[in-house]
Amino acid sequence: MSDCIFCQIASGKIPSKKVYEDEYLFAFRDINPVAPEHVLVIPKRHIASLDHLEEADEALAGKILLGIKKVANQLGLEESGYRVVNNIGENAGQAVFHIHFHLLGGRPFGWPPG
Amino acid sequence: MSDCIFCQIASGKIPSKKVYEDEYLFAFRDINPVAPEHVLVIPKRHIASLDHLEEADEALAGKILLGIKKVANQLGLEESGYRVVNNIGENAGQAVFHIHFHLLGGRPFGWPPG
Repeated sequence: MSDCIFCQIASGKIPSKKVYEDEYLFAFRDINPVAPEHVLVIPKRHIASLDHLEEADEALAGKILLGIKKVANQLGLEESGYRVVNNIGENAGQAVFHIHFHLLGGRPFGWPPG
Repeated sequence: MSDCIFCQIASGKIPSKKVYEDEYLFAFRDINPVAPEHVLVIPKRHIASLDHLEEADEALAGKILLGIKKVANQLGLEESGYRVVNNIGENAGQAVFHIHFHLLGGRPFGWPPG
């Protein structure tokens, strides 16, 4: 989608602080971090939200979760722990309608999660 | 794992308020809900956390994300939105070491997420 900011970040048209990239995924630092480590992990393919995942996307969905783990390990968060958050819809706080998983680390996290 | 409380919930040995079940997944209401809808989605197979997912688990990981969407739709949350949270490690708030995704809905959610 040419007008999607995250599609443009994933393709390099809009610069970002890239943390990880492979054939299917792109990860970059959130411009408004709420933790010492705050990375967004997205599929390169445009999918509006988790609610738009189809059965045929099972493999890609699996790659996303494994990719989050990979990025967390790259950041050295496996010992100190981390939180993964995905918002679906405006009420939940989704601001960009290209599915993105917040990977948060580097501090303790309270409960409830917002 | 015979001593894992979530394995025992998934197998029915410990009662729970079941919301969804299929061959791979089990979903049940959190006993300490922090939102009007608060469901835990888990794989039946014991995996300690996201950090313990292996490449060979890609399909199962995909089923988990698709299962979360399925449960959210079953609860009628697709219009009002929902938040999905996964904690990895004690610092992040993981209390049971069987991977579980919090599916939260029925109210707006603030930022940061804990």
